[in-house]
Amino acid sequence: MPQGKIETVPDDGLTTRQRRTLPITAVHTGPGKGKSTAAFGMALRAWNQGWPIGVFQFVKSAKWKVGEENALRVLGASGEGGTVAWHKMGEGWSWVQRGMESSEEAAKEGWEQVKRDLAAETYRFYVLDEFTYPMHWGWVDVDEVVAVLKDRPGSQHVVITGRYAKEPLTDLADLVTEMTKVKHPMDAGRKGQRGIEW
Amino acid sequence: MPQGKIETVPDDGLTTRQRRTLPITAVHTGPGKGKSTAAFGMALRAWNQGWPIGVFQFVKSAKWKVGEENALRVLGASGEGGTVAWHKMGEGWSWVQRGMESSEEAAKEGWEQVKRDLAAETYRFYVLDEFTYPMHWGWVDVDEVVAVLKDRPGSQHVVITGRYAKEPLTDLADLVTEMTKVKHPMDAGRKGQRGIEW
Repeated sequence: MPQGKIETVPDDGLTTRQRRTLPITAVHTGPGKGKSTAAFGMALRAWNQGWPIGVFQFVKSAKWKVGEENALRVLGASGEGGTVAWHKMGEGWSWVQRGMESSEEAAKEGWEQVKRDLAAETYRFYVLDEFTYPMHWGWVDVDEVVAVLKDRPGSQHVVITGRYAKEPLTDLADLVTEMTKVKHPMDAGRKGQRGIEW
Repeated sequence: MPQGKIETVPDDGLTTRQRRTLPITAVHTGPGKGKSTAAFGMALRAWNQGWPIGVFQFVKSAKWKVGEENALRVLGASGEGGTVAWHKMGEGWSWVQRGMESSEEAAKEGWEQVKRDLAAETYRFYVLDEFTYPMHWGWVDVDEVVAVLKDRPGSQHVVITGRYAKEPLTDLADLVTEMTKVKHPMDAGRKGQRGIEW
């Protein structure tokens, strides 16, 4: 329940109006649930603004996000809010014709496309889902990611999810939330549940 | 990226199949962002299952959730997934004809309706948004909430959001996630941003 109270007025020479349209970089990290889920929840707001949304799922299997994907596809096609483009590494990126040698190659290609889309301002709101892992594994250079995000044109918001977010990225980010697992049904021996986990 | 691995097999006499349809009680608490947003993200999965969804917003002002509300209304009316009923305390609960004396009375009436709906199995997925506050303020008795949730019939999932979740509630919950604020744009003097905060 944000109250809209601010603690300091920044000395950045911008008006409040200008500051309101500054591009946001958000990172959802930590071992708890809700990192991706909250990112897709944010996408609902972006959709409501009529913004084009681009989702890039940096995971091998996409089976855990079918609910969000179907919902955002229906919203994107409803003609009422923004459009939605959903790209899945797990099925081979849609823009790649040849087979990918490895997950590393696929992750790198995903990042190349994100760079192209940022340069072209294809979307106004990006979900880079599980994108921390390619950085964590050293497949994508975090310093390059930070440099690209820093210099991106226009007002393009970017949300990155996943554990092990690296410091240069959280340093750059405007909004960093850590999800902490306090208790999870799998601890009690329950497997993933339909409608809850996917 | 849940892996579906479980650490223990519970000695509860249930099959995996039975355990998969057990009703989940989830609590999103802590001072960070994403508590409600993740709950509405979960609602996307419930919608995708075709489940009737009931949202109860226990807040005076509803202005911060318009994006999620519009999106879920469009989804609920799309004819493709579950239905969505969205109840707002801030506008006076839709089922209440007379004016409410106070927020306390309104919160209590909201909880009474949740009890009626749980008893009638009106919905399959409930978001009780910011419901921790009426408990925190002593308006709604947490022990009664726990007793009602414990004895609810059928397979009705309930997600409760808000800071200051009380221990009896987190003890009861199957899934508790604490959102920790690491960094927020308002710290840097930015006000809430369109498409991000609402």
